[in-house]
Amino acid sequence: MNSKSIAASVSFSEEKMKKNAIFDSPHLFYDTYCLLPSQAQKVHAHEGSDKIYYVLEGTGRFTVGDEEQDLSAGNAVIARAGEPHGVRNDTEENLVILVTMAPRPT
Amino acid sequence: MNSKSIAASVSFSEEKMKKNAIFDSPHLFYDTYCLLPSQAQKVHAHEGSDKIYYVLEGTGRFTVGDEEQDLSAGNAVIARAGEPHGVRNDTEENLVILVTMAPRPT
Repeated sequence: MNSKSIAASVSFSEEKMKKNAIFDSPHLFYDTYCLLPSQAQKVHAHEGSDKIYYVLEGTGRFTVGDEEQDLSAGNAVIARAGEPHGVRNDTEENLVILVTMAPRPT
Repeated sequence: MNSKSIAASVSFSEEKMKKNAIFDSPHLFYDTYCLLPSQAQKVHAHEGSDKIYYVLEGTGRFTVGDEEQDLSAGNAVIARAGEPHGVRNDTEENLVILVTMAPRPT
């Protein structure tokens, strides 16, 4: 059975935000995004895919569309296909996010 | 911004396993499944959709394909399109699972 510990996937890079794959299929990506203080994922959009960010640890400043909001552990947000989205870690703590994207971008 | 507290979605039913919608789009479902002791989701399959179970609280006995495994909080498992899957709560504690399904079944 293809089971995974989410915590075991958590890994940071001093260089930039690190994406760690948990599951990957033709239908979706399921990853952790790990951001050290001051790291970010730039605002961007996927024309045909939705993305859900679910904060597992820390607090991120999320952009979806033209809105910005701080979300801390336990909160999730969806960026629907075509909506610009991004996240940055403006805090002094690490940020870990569980990210689902569907369908998998081509 | 469409943000949600995952904990706020958690709700049980004495009658049967309760599914609580968090996000819903043409591309995916994102729900919590809440199982009281002895509740279950029967083994079933979706021909065109993958499902990921991520245990948030408690321990579930998961079936994927012809395998069974106990997974506790912090662990996730994928049932790929066409694979039979289900879960039951054989413990005396509540079970809360974050479930992603993609694409949304038609």
